[in-house]
Amino acid sequence: MTRQQLIDQIKQKKSFLCVGLDTDLDKIPEFLKQYPDPVFEFNKRIIDATKDLCVAYKPNSAFYESYGVKGLQSLIDTWQYLPKETLNIIDAKRGDIGNTSDKYARAFFDETASGMSFDAITVTPYMGNDSVTPYLKYEGKWVIILALTSSVGSKDFQYLNTGDDYLYEAVIKKANTWAGADRIMYVVGATKSTEFTNIRKYAPDNFLLVPGVGAQGGSLEDVCQYGITKDCGLLVNASRSIIYASNGEDFADAAREEAKSLQKQMAVELEKAGII
Amino acid sequence: MTRQQLIDQIKQKKSFLCVGLDTDLDKIPEFLKQYPDPVFEFNKRIIDATKDLCVAYKPNSAFYESYGVKGLQSLIDTWQYLPKETLNIIDAKRGDIGNTSDKYARAFFDETASGMSFDAITVTPYMGNDSVTPYLKYEGKWVIILALTSSVGSKDFQYLNTGDDYLYEAVIKKANTWAGADRIMYVVGATKSTEFTNIRKYAPDNFLLVPGVGAQGGSLEDVCQYGITKDCGLLVNASRSIIYASNGEDFADAAREEAKSLQKQMAVELEKAGII
Repeated sequence: MTRQQLIDQIKQKKSFLCVGLDTDLDKIPEFLKQYPDPVFEFNKRIIDATKDLCVAYKPNSAFYESYGVKGLQSLIDTWQYLPKETLNIIDAKRGDIGNTSDKYARAFFDETASGMSFDAITVTPYMGNDSVTPYLKYEGKWVIILALTSSVGSKDFQYLNTGDDYLYEAVIKKANTWAGADRIMYVVGATKSTEFTNIRKYAPDNFLLVPGVGAQGGSLEDVCQYGITKDCGLLVNASRSIIYASNGEDFADAAREEAKSLQKQMAVELEKAGII
Repeated sequence: MTRQQLIDQIKQKKSFLCVGLDTDLDKIPEFLKQYPDPVFEFNKRIIDATKDLCVAYKPNSAFYESYGVKGLQSLIDTWQYLPKETLNIIDAKRGDIGNTSDKYARAFFDETASGMSFDAITVTPYMGNDSVTPYLKYEGKWVIILALTSSVGSKDFQYLNTGDDYLYEAVIKKANTWAGADRIMYVVGATKSTEFTNIRKYAPDNFLLVPGVGAQGGSLEDVCQYGITKDCGLLVNASRSIIYASNGEDFADAAREEAKSLQKQMAVELEKAGII
């Protein structure tokens, strides 16, 4: 998916919502367990209920991997069911040397090899250049690099002072030399909203994938105040607050309500910024 | 596996060799392709040919993931076939927030969940504390944290100066506060052998997993000169140089020859250090 297609979709849907599919058998409604693949059945209904309200989906690979072969099959079936017009992100946070990153790229970007071809992958930057560039060989695919995360551990290393910059700033500056804003996005946690001004100095045009709104306590308004650009430049992810809005038979309707509420706030922000 | 069991095994086998199972369908002998699962068939024969010469095995998850469901099944079958006395490491380089790391821990450490229960996992430190500690809840399992890698990209961030320390030193110092040398190892590339003296200042007792001997050009003698401890403290990994020593019908014998040659050099180093 090109940057322009993503921007067009944001304007058309008046939304920059990404729905995180962190699907956990212990949290989904009991009645789904009668189906042969409860995880896929859950995802299918969440997708049906939200696809006109969001511009991206983001399955979290760990949740599927924790169920072994059955979980991987759920992930493949979910990928196949995802709408073709949304930006479909695998949240895998991979990061390894070049010849190994080549294999991860095949695992997530090459349908003929693995059964899946996501549009984007999250990647961890610790091993540098050759842990990122192999993914960029795939035309039209995106790499989303961890910069400043919303977890408690983010302060351990991401805020280390590396001369003129914090480590997360050094990551953005260096990664900007590998590819442009048409191929690279950065992960920036919503709980760090005051840092967005600073991040926009180094990544003025890149889309930022922003987890942490909702369950983790980040504010959508703050994120937009400091992070929105003329092209929007934001994908705000919500996982648990949407997909587990109810654990009864009405879970898909409840997910839709929650997504709708976020989409409405996003429409206001897009108008405020003069994008729609 | 406990630290003492690992040390005992090193003394008994006179080896601190780890065999990396980076198994690639494009590189294995042609005749294996007649088997229902050529990847597993290859691994099985490599394991049979090397298990008295090495103390650890390390399948690289990416290679298996790149073949989708079939690849994951090969990995599970390989795990089941691995000797129970070797330290079986999954080279996965995962790193995510706490609730997601919990899932990765289940994927690789909990046989009832996923079909696999490795003894150790490689982990990337960028997200800090909560990306590492969930694995430590599993009694007797190890976390192997990336410190200084052998790839070209290692210079992008690992050598950033963070005040008194390079980033890789800051990682070791911080991770030492999370658990001791009985639960944490560090990855240090063999091509960085002169850095081992420095690393031993911060990690005097930790085992170091050392890739880069062989195909990547690191020297076993240099690594030992600067890195060996009274308990050995080293696991030296070789992947391609062993498993692809031949691509004919004699590949397992050729792998054994190569492993034997490394084991003999290791016996000399263990004697030099007074360990055996």
